[in-house]
Amino acid sequence: MALDVLPWKRAIIENVTPQVDGGRFAAKSVVGDAVVVEADAFTDGHDRMRVRLTWHYEDGDNGSRGSDGRGAVDAGEVEMTALGNDRWRAAFTVSRLGRYRYGVMAWVDAFHTWRHDFNRREDPADIAVALQSGAQLIREAAARASVDDAERLKVLAARLAPDGDRHASGGEGRGAPGDERASDFEGRRELARSEELGALMDRYPDLRQVARLEQELTIVVEPVRARYGAWYEFFPRSAAAEPGRHGTFADCIAWLPRIAAMGFDIVYFPPIHPIGRVRRKGPNNTLTPGPDDPGSPWAIGADEGGHRAIHRELGTEADFRELVRKAGDLGLDIALDIAFQCAPDHPYVKDHPDWFRWRPDGTVQYAENPPKKYQDIYPFEFENADWKALFEELKGVVMHWIDCGVTVFRVDNPHTKPFAMWEWLITEVRRTHPEAIFLSEAFTRPRVMHRLAKLGFSQSYTYFTWRNTRAELTEYLTELH
Amino acid sequence: MALDVLPWKRAIIENVTPQVDGGRFAAKSVVGDAVVVEADAFTDGHDRMRVRLTWHYEDGDNGSRGSDGRGAVDAGEVEMTALGNDRWRAAFTVSRLGRYRYGVMAWVDAFHTWRHDFNRREDPADIAVALQSGAQLIREAAARASVDDAERLKVLAARLAPDGDRHASGGEGRGAPGDERASDFEGRRELARSEELGALMDRYPDLRQVARLEQELTIVVEPVRARYGAWYEFFPRSAAAEPGRHGTFADCIAWLPRIAAMGFDIVYFPPIHPIGRVRRKGPNNTLTPGPDDPGSPWAIGADEGGHRAIHRELGTEADFRELVRKAGDLGLDIALDIAFQCAPDHPYVKDHPDWFRWRPDGTVQYAENPPKKYQDIYPFEFENADWKALFEELKGVVMHWIDCGVTVFRVDNPHTKPFAMWEWLITEVRRTHPEAIFLSEAFTRPRVMHRLAKLGFSQSYTYFTWRNTRAELTEYLTELH
Repeated sequence: MALDVLPWKRAIIENVTPQVDGGRFAAKSVVGDAVVVEADAFTDGHDRMRVRLTWHYEDGDNGSRGSDGRGAVDAGEVEMTALGNDRWRAAFTVSRLGRYRYGVMAWVDAFHTWRHDFNRREDPADIAVALQSGAQLIREAAARASVDDAERLKVLAARLAPDGDRHASGGEGRGAPGDERASDFEGRRELARSEELGALMDRYPDLRQVARLEQELTIVVEPVRARYGAWYEFFPRSAAAEPGRHGTFADCIAWLPRIAAMGFDIVYFPPIHPIGRVRRKGPNNTLTPGPDDPGSPWAIGADEGGHRAIHRELGTEADFRELVRKAGDLGLDIALDIAFQCAPDHPYVKDHPDWFRWRPDGTVQYAENPPKKYQDIYPFEFENADWKALFEELKGVVMHWIDCGVTVFRVDNPHTKPFAMWEWLITEVRRTHPEAIFLSEAFTRPRVMHRLAKLGFSQSYTYFTWRNTRAELTEYLTELH
Repeated sequence: MALDVLPWKRAIIENVTPQVDGGRFAAKSVVGDAVVVEADAFTDGHDRMRVRLTWHYEDGDNGSRGSDGRGAVDAGEVEMTALGNDRWRAAFTVSRLGRYRYGVMAWVDAFHTWRHDFNRREDPADIAVALQSGAQLIREAAARASVDDAERLKVLAARLAPDGDRHASGGEGRGAPGDERASDFEGRRELARSEELGALMDRYPDLRQVARLEQELTIVVEPVRARYGAWYEFFPRSAAAEPGRHGTFADCIAWLPRIAAMGFDIVYFPPIHPIGRVRRKGPNNTLTPGPDDPGSPWAIGADEGGHRAIHRELGTEADFRELVRKAGDLGLDIALDIAFQCAPDHPYVKDHPDWFRWRPDGTVQYAENPPKKYQDIYPFEFENADWKALFEELKGVVMHWIDCGVTVFRVDNPHTKPFAMWEWLITEVRRTHPEAIFLSEAFTRPRVMHRLAKLGFSQSYTYFTWRNTRAELTEYLTELH
């Protein structure tokens, strides 16, 4: 490696936590958390170190101003405390939803290294020379200081080592050079050790040789409800007071006080969109429904609309907004189901044939897990030439419901859609709506569930139910912690 | 993020081992090792995956040819085996000293996914359509295949789904479309499941959607002796057979058979360079040596030369080369001491005053740990404007002794010199001399010792002696393992 491109600093920073996959993913927190950051930091030799934690709110525009309209800078630096064994710790509080960036800086502190050595010196000749060195460090700090502090630092430097008199000080015994005793320097030793000098020097460190993380790390700040929420699920179509009538959003409103009184935080509805008529399922998974069979709400889309539309019998968008408002008044969030799949008569199928997989017989491949068949549902074929339009459309669906007041989404089977799509979509949505919470409905293997969590999902279903022994339960709860 | 720059693949690769600090440092091995690589790999949905380990010898010129003059390509790919829970494993053998790069590639295997689903199909109409889909995949593979294999694949595709006859095959029962029974397809189902077809399809995967590690990882291959060696230390000046005479390299040669017979691998000499005369130490750390006091060999350098020179009384460079040869004949390596520090009369001090720290009294700062003083030793000041020349010179010192046949170096107090210097120097030396072994003489804190190991030192002294309890010993040995 050419030395011209060797960026070396004496200070080393390693093993910063929190850190997910070497910074590939953001760490997580909820608003109000004190984020505890630790790092290994050390240098060669025995010099004294200083280590600082730095952070700033990540904003598209200026990197440090909050998106809450207040415009205040939300950024800071704090000294990290040595825990022993070269480990350092500090914390910062995340007060806003969104993303913060944090880093660690470390450097060799020349003044404290000097002071530490100076305190151990016994030879008067050495002390005299060391006083000169110390005064030099103080004069260098003065050049970095505010006008007032610079004046004071110069005064202290002069007292430590008077110009033109390298071996004596004001009120102390004088003698010919070489004649000093260590006791002659007591006053200046006290000055060197003084709190005032230490504090002033701390204020103006020489930052030319500061080591920093090669790359800042990111932490996402979510609402407190992202960490924990009690969910209450019901089918709005079953909300009518009288048997036989299709429930409406107005009927749902009537249930809200009771749900709130039970202590729930979130009311979750299965899909509320128009239900397909083509190959609609009847009772017991038959393909011969009666005229009044409603079909599965996960068979989304019909002539009248798709993922942005509302099933007519439930009410209008205005009714839905009213429901969200009423829920909010009771401290409840409405969670919608994000099921990215289509009934055969979803408008997407006609308008965007590229988004589906066509079989050699000219039909679209419906969902199946042979020999099981879900003829009323077409999955998307994400690996298609028009994938960018598909990704944008799906993000648009989420943004539509956020516009209606929904911020909590239960995502249906996210592990059967590309991980990259979710990472992009969730990140993009949160750029303007950091309050959005995504629950991953993924009953699947640990690595897959971890990936979904890392890429942005706030919560997940559990596979708790498949854990039986004490050891399995312990391991699982430890993993969750 | 603009979708134009979203590089997405369905396959995900994570948690590759070995991996040191996210790939910041190379993993380690010795020549002949089978390097076992593991990775988590998975995709969305239930599709079948394939995962491969790839590796190549890292060479400045072409990235895959060895530096041993044979010019053969040392690179390969091997399928990784599923261990369960989305973990995969494979291994490759490192047969050459130097650096290998390795990576993991993973992709969704359309053919095996199809075959897995096909085997579970029961509905004759579905089977007929699926045969068409399978034949299509085979024809696509034929387009990627060698001429012979392509011919065979086309034949198999035609048997699976004869052109113009979507519902029947050669020797099996025919009927009107819609009339088939599952049993009609037995012959073609067997063909779909056949080993021949599977093997041919495996040979020509569709690699357009292959996911790869964002960055290849590196493993350093060192000599077997880097892993373990028994060291025998002695002062060559004490090697004379008769008391009172200064030992020579010729005297050392006489000792070698005895050392080899005891089973040692390495003979280590403290510095063999000219010893400074200025402020030479006498007995008991005095500064008043007698005319015959030899001084400390770590006080390196005098008028007659520095780190590349040999103390006259030991012999000449030719004598030293002879010693190295004789040792080699007995299977012994000579290890030299790399102590990057200078006596006050080392030529560097006059020639490169910038490389040292000057005190306000116009003297050079000698080594000290107040109140202890090592007046006969000047440490380098690495943070100097001329550091590039210093780094190059120190590398030159190591290269000089490699040229004399030495490949093992005991590095004195590396943790008191910049970590970045060692990382650069060891990497640069090994670029042309991958056989070089560096032992770190660092009795210091765990994080510092880890850093030295990560940046390139092969071996270290132990802090075993500070471990006393059973728990401490267990922890320490576990850490070493």
